[in-house]
Amino acid sequence: MTDARTVRSAGTREAIMAAAERLYAEHGLVAVSNRQISEAAGQGNVAAVGYHFGTRADLVRAIMRKHSEAIEEIRRRMAEETRGSEEVRDWVACLVRPATEHLATLGVPSWYARFAVQVMTDPVLRAIVTDEALTREPLRETLHGLGGCLDALPAEVRAERGDMARQLITHTCAERERALAEGTSTRQPSWYDTAGALTDAITGLLLAPVTRRSPAKEART
Amino acid sequence: MTDARTVRSAGTREAIMAAAERLYAEHGLVAVSNRQISEAAGQGNVAAVGYHFGTRADLVRAIMRKHSEAIEEIRRRMAEETRGSEEVRDWVACLVRPATEHLATLGVPSWYARFAVQVMTDPVLRAIVTDEALTREPLRETLHGLGGCLDALPAEVRAERGDMARQLITHTCAERERALAEGTSTRQPSWYDTAGALTDAITGLLLAPVTRRSPAKEART
Repeated sequence: MTDARTVRSAGTREAIMAAAERLYAEHGLVAVSNRQISEAAGQGNVAAVGYHFGTRADLVRAIMRKHSEAIEEIRRRMAEETRGSEEVRDWVACLVRPATEHLATLGVPSWYARFAVQVMTDPVLRAIVTDEALTREPLRETLHGLGGCLDALPAEVRAERGDMARQLITHTCAERERALAEGTSTRQPSWYDTAGALTDAITGLLLAPVTRRSPAKEART
Repeated sequence: MTDARTVRSAGTREAIMAAAERLYAEHGLVAVSNRQISEAAGQGNVAAVGYHFGTRADLVRAIMRKHSEAIEEIRRRMAEETRGSEEVRDWVACLVRPATEHLATLGVPSWYARFAVQVMTDPVLRAIVTDEALTREPLRETLHGLGGCLDALPAEVRAERGDMARQLITHTCAERERALAEGTSTRQPSWYDTAGALTDAITGLLLAPVTRRSPAKEART
């Protein structure tokens, strides 16, 4: 390709990703066709999505990757500052704050947080996106640092509470993003404060005592 | 109406609610038309939904009401047993366990937990359903009991953490319901154990220390 065509193609890819992110966030992954995305992106050719991205999973991964690169850059800096800490709360902040800081840069309305909810509630795409996220060094360092502070917890409790933390981050951010987009009231004045509230809550959740189940109760459904 | 017609009409209402719950749970509230619901419910008349329920909001409320009556009956018994307790965990259990106990009675596959996610992510329907839920005495007693144990928390922190607890219950139940329906692995062997894990985690979340924000940080976004 010539340089001019490369630039035009990059612009087309950006337009398709932006249109897809918004449509997926609003209507869910299943309800939106590649044709609708091509049209919303202003592409005359309704096959533009397939041409530029391949499958729906490839398009979703490309959108997630764009955001996660920005988020992981923020996390790299935070993890460096946190290195050596044995405070759960410090590592939870490394988990929460990069996402909210990135969302703050996107302005209003943004769609990424609601798009991420759709991805995280699709079992197949969630697995793909999670596997990819776990290859990133700043996230690995954060999870490692956090795990080191929580080694008193049984592994399966840690895994389950990790799921819960992810759910809280994903859905709290999506609710705030929706409220900002629709101009309704928000619990916190800023993304920064949202991160602080989430960090407190998730720290408490992770550190909560584990109640032993009595054998009699285990038999119940 | 004659008795026979009343019985037939009640059966039609049940069939429509079951079809709507499943379709809404799978595709979201917006993507499903009343015509699709009528057809899935085996109704020759595509206007059956409108005839039996009125608007989409009326249909959603009827489905939610059916479940919440069953849930509140369980909660009434639990709240009675818990009355007088000043333990946060006891009241959190009253919040969590009625829903999981109800879900356990529905068998596999069920759709209610995923339907509830759709309702709770629709701002208008959530408000309607929440207002209606708050008229129910067992839930009011539970929230009052819980509030009494948490009166050291600032009101706005209590409200925000209440949102988070609701999100955790809703989404954890929906993920488990989906995993059971699809035959994939679940974190816990039973709904009873899921409730225990949620109760521990939410108790920790509610009791977490509140970090004061420094004024300098408040200016950031």
